[in-house]
Amino acid sequence: MMLKGDERLDYLLTDDMRIIQSPSVFSFSLDAVLLSNFTYVPIQKGTIVDLCSGNGVIPLMLHRRSKANIFGVEIQERLYDMAKRSVEYNKLDEKISMIHDDLKNAPDKIGREFVDVVTCNPPYFQDIPTSEQNMNEHYAIARHEIKTNLEEVINASKQLLKHGGKLAMVHRPGRMLDIVTTMRKHGIEPKRIQFVYPKMGKEANTLLIEGIKGGKADLKILPPIYVYEENNEYTAELKEILYGRS
Amino acid sequence: MMLKGDERLDYLLTDDMRIIQSPSVFSFSLDAVLLSNFTYVPIQKGTIVDLCSGNGVIPLMLHRRSKANIFGVEIQERLYDMAKRSVEYNKLDEKISMIHDDLKNAPDKIGREFVDVVTCNPPYFQDIPTSEQNMNEHYAIARHEIKTNLEEVINASKQLLKHGGKLAMVHRPGRMLDIVTTMRKHGIEPKRIQFVYPKMGKEANTLLIEGIKGGKADLKILPPIYVYEENNEYTAELKEILYGRS
Repeated sequence: MMLKGDERLDYLLTDDMRIIQSPSVFSFSLDAVLLSNFTYVPIQKGTIVDLCSGNGVIPLMLHRRSKANIFGVEIQERLYDMAKRSVEYNKLDEKISMIHDDLKNAPDKIGREFVDVVTCNPPYFQDIPTSEQNMNEHYAIARHEIKTNLEEVINASKQLLKHGGKLAMVHRPGRMLDIVTTMRKHGIEPKRIQFVYPKMGKEANTLLIEGIKGGKADLKILPPIYVYEENNEYTAELKEILYGRS
Repeated sequence: MMLKGDERLDYLLTDDMRIIQSPSVFSFSLDAVLLSNFTYVPIQKGTIVDLCSGNGVIPLMLHRRSKANIFGVEIQERLYDMAKRSVEYNKLDEKISMIHDDLKNAPDKIGREFVDVVTCNPPYFQDIPTSEQNMNEHYAIARHEIKTNLEEVINASKQLLKHGGKLAMVHRPGRMLDIVTTMRKHGIEPKRIQFVYPKMGKEANTLLIEGIKGGKADLKILPPIYVYEENNEYTAELKEILYGRS
């Protein structure tokens, strides 16, 4: 495997896994780690699909907890290519399949109504940046609803998921109402929400949400997660999430 | 003022205010205190309406923070009567007006589209208890959606509130999606949500929510409130809410 341009081969949380990253294109964020930790996975078998997969960080993390087949769908060729090479480097080709396509086509490519879990760390922002605001196209597509949006993500998830299958997303709390409304519109009932707070006493800046296709209304709000202590070190809980499952 | 039957004249958080309570009819709960603390109030003037007012605990608490005119609406005659006598006992007749009526009639009685703030600690449960499950009619009406429901509460609030006026409610987290959906349907945009957790590491059991009539979508999730320490004493924050504003 060859690294291209400014790519690095970073450790992925633990010693025995690596991931290709590039500062000019994409690096995975804490949000992806939080989502991987939050989501339910089938342990022994089944199918997981990660939409907006980026450099494949979520499939790479989830394979440690699940023997399911994992698909990652990424529209940006450059990121898809990085993800594919990371999968090869970690010798996970038989378990993780990266797909270079618009997520709208994922149900046709992967199959309909049989997936156990869909995960997604989608673009958060509804506004489209002007070229001045955000020169880097890769980042703009990852952050703003340019190539896809919440409606398309949830609609594709609905088509992929079997009855009783789960959709887990990470997003901004400000979009919560759009998310729950759109989920319900597509027959996915929000069941678990967990808010992530940067520190004690601050407003939440991250939302983790799981919905079940065809589920009954019964929402639970899980205990909060705090990222930093007062002294700006990671909390014990976050260290456990970041390093504890290695 | 005479106490009737098993009524008591309880202190209301501080030395200088009393409230009539009765164990067989109704006693105010921590939820009412949390809502009073959570809600915005106009300081110098304006109008506040408390729906599902019970024994008037929320009007009695809010008057300490606001010079607004405060109305309390209660459908149960027995509770209305207790609230009215509590208002008289505290010499607050000129500031707090109790109304004995169905909240559906509140806009006709109080006025339309001019109220600054509506507060409501409504019945939480959608199911109607059978006579076996809940013999006490007063409690059943206070806890179950027998005489009113979320739709009616929010619809009445919409009619009362001026543009930019606020609706503050306390409820169960499991009803959050119903609440935000119904608020939006009636043009009240959810703006602030705060979850109350019984202890660290437990799921939230109480939801505080504020919507603004005609507001823009921009939801904030406030820092969590914890009620008890590990040793089952109130947390410092809760003591401040309970006693600090005296």
